[in-house]
Amino acid sequence: MGMDLGGTNIKTSLFTKDFSPVAEQRTPTMVHLGAEGVLERMEENIRDLLLKAGTSLREVEVMGIGVPGLLDIENGISLFSPNFPKWENVPIVHWFRKRLGIPVFIDNDVRVNLYGECFFGAGKGKKNVVLLTLGTGLGAGVMIDGHILYGATGSMGEIGHMNMYREGRPCRCKSSGCLGRYVSALGLLRTVKEKIEAKEETILTAWTDDPEEITAKMVSRAFDAGDTLAREAMEETGEILGYGLVNVINLYNPECIIIGGGMSAAGERLLSKAREIVDTHALEISRKACTIVTAQLGDASGMLGAAKAAAIKNSDRTEV
Amino acid sequence: MGMDLGGTNIKTSLFTKDFSPVAEQRTPTMVHLGAEGVLERMEENIRDLLLKAGTSLREVEVMGIGVPGLLDIENGISLFSPNFPKWENVPIVHWFRKRLGIPVFIDNDVRVNLYGECFFGAGKGKKNVVLLTLGTGLGAGVMIDGHILYGATGSMGEIGHMNMYREGRPCRCKSSGCLGRYVSALGLLRTVKEKIEAKEETILTAWTDDPEEITAKMVSRAFDAGDTLAREAMEETGEILGYGLVNVINLYNPECIIIGGGMSAAGERLLSKAREIVDTHALEISRKACTIVTAQLGDASGMLGAAKAAAIKNSDRTEV
Repeated sequence: MGMDLGGTNIKTSLFTKDFSPVAEQRTPTMVHLGAEGVLERMEENIRDLLLKAGTSLREVEVMGIGVPGLLDIENGISLFSPNFPKWENVPIVHWFRKRLGIPVFIDNDVRVNLYGECFFGAGKGKKNVVLLTLGTGLGAGVMIDGHILYGATGSMGEIGHMNMYREGRPCRCKSSGCLGRYVSALGLLRTVKEKIEAKEETILTAWTDDPEEITAKMVSRAFDAGDTLAREAMEETGEILGYGLVNVINLYNPECIIIGGGMSAAGERLLSKAREIVDTHALEISRKACTIVTAQLGDASGMLGAAKAAAIKNSDRTEV
Repeated sequence: MGMDLGGTNIKTSLFTKDFSPVAEQRTPTMVHLGAEGVLERMEENIRDLLLKAGTSLREVEVMGIGVPGLLDIENGISLFSPNFPKWENVPIVHWFRKRLGIPVFIDNDVRVNLYGECFFGAGKGKKNVVLLTLGTGLGAGVMIDGHILYGATGSMGEIGHMNMYREGRPCRCKSSGCLGRYVSALGLLRTVKEKIEAKEETILTAWTDDPEEITAKMVSRAFDAGDTLAREAMEETGEILGYGLVNVINLYNPECIIIGGGMSAAGERLLSKAREIVDTHALEISRKACTIVTAQLGDASGMLGAAKAAAIKNSDRTEV
């Protein structure tokens, strides 16, 4: 069983032993309920799923949950999650092991997507893969030499906080000039707003009076309509993404970079400039060994990856 | 047996099964002799070592060689090495296996130093270690979750080519603004020269008329004498090193960064500013889990690490 805990929906799927989907259940998260309330929504989601599938917990071998934000993976605790109010040091694993009586594992939401894409999607059969999720923010997960990596505190791969400019846009991490402040939906929209404030002409201001209402999707549409501001904003974002990918290639040496997340829908509008930078600035041998592709599994990779990660960890544990 | 193939010397050491040194032999490399000549010098070095130790090849279980430059590790070929003329696609492993009749493995010179420091030096007992070698250039090796990492083409960890400035000093890799162009002996000296050309006062011009003769060691001495230019050059280099370390911490999440290489002798002259940047710009949880230390083994880590790497690979191979 794999759960994708999102700020809007809790999505859980049951799989057979060879990871064919059996049934799926979606429940609104209602983050305003706080930790206890959300945990109960999660349990309800699981009970509904089992009912729907006509099965019971006794048939479930292991459960994995992909959780956004800061985790203590080993102890199964969600320390903090930006979109979850009244949510601090939540002992998810302990709570569910007690309630459900089955092995439960949590992992970072981006990393479970990496498990999904590496074992079933765009990275299938590969041993050196970096997954970049371009959404509201910028996240990443890294597999090298066949190992999905965690690091000292489970934070391996914080590409969103790659320092690109010494003095740049301030970041929530207290540093500034971090890649994620430019390459993300929020970053792109900030670039667009700066251009509007600089009185650049754009069709976007005809579509809405309030610059806060502009979305990444609207920028893509304006780009397609030939809007100069949208084109420049995409190109600037693609350029700094390109330098970020140069560093990803030089520092990780992946054979495959998978671009996922909602903003990857911008596709080549964003990626063509990024590819141009990679082709002229990354180390030749590393670059030639690396392809840049978009994610294959979409929404499903979180649930599938959470289940796969849990299955691996459970069998590792049993072996020891 | 572990060999450290350098541009000046070939150094080889024999170890017991538990890696106590038995004997060591040093032979000038004479790179001008080209591939065939240097390979013969290497063999001579080995024969002399065995003679000195009063033993024979039959007693040697495995041999590891740390090789600078670009390698095809799997096939045991040195593709290219910047300080070695007439040296291209040199099949080192094939050559020595045939001549010596024992298992031979090659690896990157920085990575064998990482094996040395991780198993016997400053990284002993740790599972997440980044070794930075600050020498003429800037190199790195990475161990995460207990795995020493290679990547798709064995180039994992090319920190020297981390893009820091979009437009910066041109690099041999055809990009520009690479970290190693600033943080290395060559980078520091370039910074010093730029300051001298800008007519800044310095004691260094009293020590030598020719700016080309200034060494990193002299800059350290001038720094200690209170020279303003030397202090500024160290501080600027330490600052950009600091931002490089921010990216190392955020992208790799190591528990320990080991600074080695000849230029690490500059010590806190360079590191104090770097630590200041790390403390204010790296992700808090990752930073608190990470210590920055200098290498412990010095010269010996190359030979020791080459032997250890070969022993590990040989036993992996036998297990399969």
